[in-house]
Amino acid sequence: MIDFETILGNVRAGAPLVHNITNYVTVNDCANILLACGGSPIMSDDEREVEEITSICGGLNINIGTLNGRTIPSMFLAGKRANALGHPVLLDPVGAGASALRTETAAKLIEEVRFAVIRGNISEIKALAQGAAATKGVDANEADQVNADNLDGVIAFAKAFAEKTGAVVAITGATDVIVDGARACVICNGHPMMSRITGTGCMLSAMTTAFVAANPAQPFEAVCAAVIAMGLCGEIAYGRLSALDGNSTYRNCIIDAVYNLTAQQLKDGAKYELR
Amino acid sequence: MIDFETILGNVRAGAPLVHNITNYVTVNDCANILLACGGSPIMSDDEREVEEITSICGGLNINIGTLNGRTIPSMFLAGKRANALGHPVLLDPVGAGASALRTETAAKLIEEVRFAVIRGNISEIKALAQGAAATKGVDANEADQVNADNLDGVIAFAKAFAEKTGAVVAITGATDVIVDGARACVICNGHPMMSRITGTGCMLSAMTTAFVAANPAQPFEAVCAAVIAMGLCGEIAYGRLSALDGNSTYRNCIIDAVYNLTAQQLKDGAKYELR
Amino acid sequence: MIDFETILGNVRAGAPLVHNITNYVTVNDCANILLACGGSPIMSDDEREVEEITSICGGLNINIGTLNGRTIPSMFLAGKRANALGHPVLLDPVGAGASALRTETAAKLIEEVRFAVIRGNISEIKALAQGAAATKGVDANEADQVNADNLDGVIAFAKAFAEKTGAVVAITGATDVIVDGARACVICNGHPMMSRITGTGCMLSAMTTAFVAANPAQPFEAVCAAVIAMGLCGEIAYGRLSALDGNSTYRNCIIDAVYNLTAQQLKDGAKYELR
Repeated sequence: MIDFETILGNVRAGAPLVHNITNYVTVNDCANILLACGGSPIMSDDEREVEEITSICGGLNINIGTLNGRTIPSMFLAGKRANALGHPVLLDPVGAGASALRTETAAKLIEEVRFAVIRGNISEIKALAQGAAATKGVDANEADQVNADNLDGVIAFAKAFAEKTGAVVAITGATDVIVDGARACVICNGHPMMSRITGTGCMLSAMTTAFVAANPAQPFEAVCAAVIAMGLCGEIAYGRLSALDGNSTYRNCIIDAVYNLTAQQLKDGAKYELR
Repeated sequence: MIDFETILGNVRAGAPLVHNITNYVTVNDCANILLACGGSPIMSDDEREVEEITSICGGLNINIGTLNGRTIPSMFLAGKRANALGHPVLLDPVGAGASALRTETAAKLIEEVRFAVIRGNISEIKALAQGAAATKGVDANEADQVNADNLDGVIAFAKAFAEKTGAVVAITGATDVIVDGARACVICNGHPMMSRITGTGCMLSAMTTAFVAANPAQPFEAVCAAVIAMGLCGEIAYGRLSALDGNSTYRNCIIDAVYNLTAQQLKDGAKYELR
Repeated sequence: MIDFETILGNVRAGAPLVHNITNYVTVNDCANILLACGGSPIMSDDEREVEEITSICGGLNINIGTLNGRTIPSMFLAGKRANALGHPVLLDPVGAGASALRTETAAKLIEEVRFAVIRGNISEIKALAQGAAATKGVDANEADQVNADNLDGVIAFAKAFAEKTGAVVAITGATDVIVDGARACVICNGHPMMSRITGTGCMLSAMTTAFVAANPAQPFEAVCAAVIAMGLCGEIAYGRLSALDGNSTYRNCIIDAVYNLTAQQLKDGAKYELR
């Protein structure tokens, strides 16, 4: 059983400051969801300051969307400094598999930085774990989707990747699979409309970093709780929509739901299975 | 007559992946409106990956807002690759006329890249077509506004520019003028409050790229449909506002309206004249 | 007494174009709040165009969030050009004290550019005025908070900094302190939930630039009016929230409240004391 009360309570009480080196598409939503969950964001990507900035933070979120030459060295510098300080570092390999620059940078980051969490869609994680990729841009390839038939295989592959990297691996989509070397959690929260908003993945990565930073003793459970929280908030937010609302209002409602989320809601609404 | 059912149906069914090299001010709204209309966004601007990224896409949207030295070479690389692959490329010359950097970069892009569509306000298009400019920043100069008195002249000038560039030229504002070498479409949808939101032009350009990518046989009609759709959604969204709502809620309602837009709404609400 | 009718009227009538060199986290909100208050935004940060762009504007807003090597020279170029043209320039030293890059860049900007306004939280202003800093990222340190006990000391320190720099100094937080060399204004508008949104400070800086640009004869009063307006809109927006709303809807409601703000609301709702 995941102790939602403790995990969410630690985020709210600890108010972890999260350093984000992230893309400019969804950065505002990442900042607001960090504030919504109880954390605090700082964005900084210049190589002359990232080590200093990450030092005053509790965790580091590295997201390779809109990857570019100026910020790649900053990712390595901040990642290594965070490692040295014992801060958890999360990698969101946005679009890995879609370009050599993204795939290779993510692979090199995994080589040189010790990640506490690697979170992506199934195509991105496959691109990193297997060197094979057929992503459709930043979305998962349909052929890759996790379902009842391939679930055992996905868990096995994710566990191998978790063992190799030492990270909690979170493969998110309609069905989410979270693994560390020993355990797996399969999560069915969420709503299909979440894929019609830009940045649900990025937002989840930012929030996950806060959850892990505030719960250093149980990173696996913290990742599971964050993924469940995001999915559940997608469900809650969907329930608030009227017929005329669309994806923009939905985005606002999801962040609002995170803001108002309680441990009781998590207990009542979580749909997960530990294996 | 514009066949809205086919054009919108093709966007929804084709879900075109659109590569955006765009400014950081309105990029999130561009991504969300692409998802709202049925397309899919990817943002990528590093010269080491843009050719690869654009190859997996169906269209390319180049927007010169917040133009900078790092991304200018990427615009040329991506544009030429998209040309080679036969993907439609749209140019949004944000702020052309406001600085030599913007005017000259846009002019050079037009020289070296074959654009399917060039969409801007009247002052931006004049700056490119006539080398003259008196823009008020990123908004059209009042003296340039399209009205009943100068409409014929604007159409003639736009047609000449369309012939010269081979692009469908879309001059948008209170009255929109869309031309290719042979035809013109004058559109009166929209609401004045749209000018009180940042990024309606950028969002329209992103959505137009999706419409054209999904309707390769009829680019002129696809541009007209996208411009009508944006204007109509501005009207629908305005109708949803309460007295206490302002431009932030209006932005959300416009994206929501695009999300819920039907061909029937377009048929009933379109205010256009083909010439 | 602050003449809200004249000050707000000048913003609405003058529609000042504000040049922003700002961070990519909150840039969209800055653009929309500028439009909401009656101004007009342009974002531009490449050194090859910033002087030209700032020349067509009425004011310049320099914000050092997500500071990076590419845009630092642009800040100096634009600032000096704006000085030469007599345009008001505002400095928002986001995160000063959190890294040497930020503290030193802000200090050098103050040395080389004449600022009409310097607006930050108490920790940021202390970092600049005293060379001492203990910021918690981009938020003020709790130990620094302005309260009844230390208010006189904060005013004295701010006045000294205003005299040294020639700027109106605005220290914003739960209690806001605005000073020039001679006068002080203590403002108690606002709502604690404003700290749960990213970018309220950035938005205030953008809006303040518009207020000062439209009211060149009374910069001190214009800054006070902008700070009161932001706080009051935070109160108005809070009053619109339902139990299920959170920080994302709150952000929208604040911008909406600015859009609908009247001089009468300011007169009735302002909570300030001139000293």
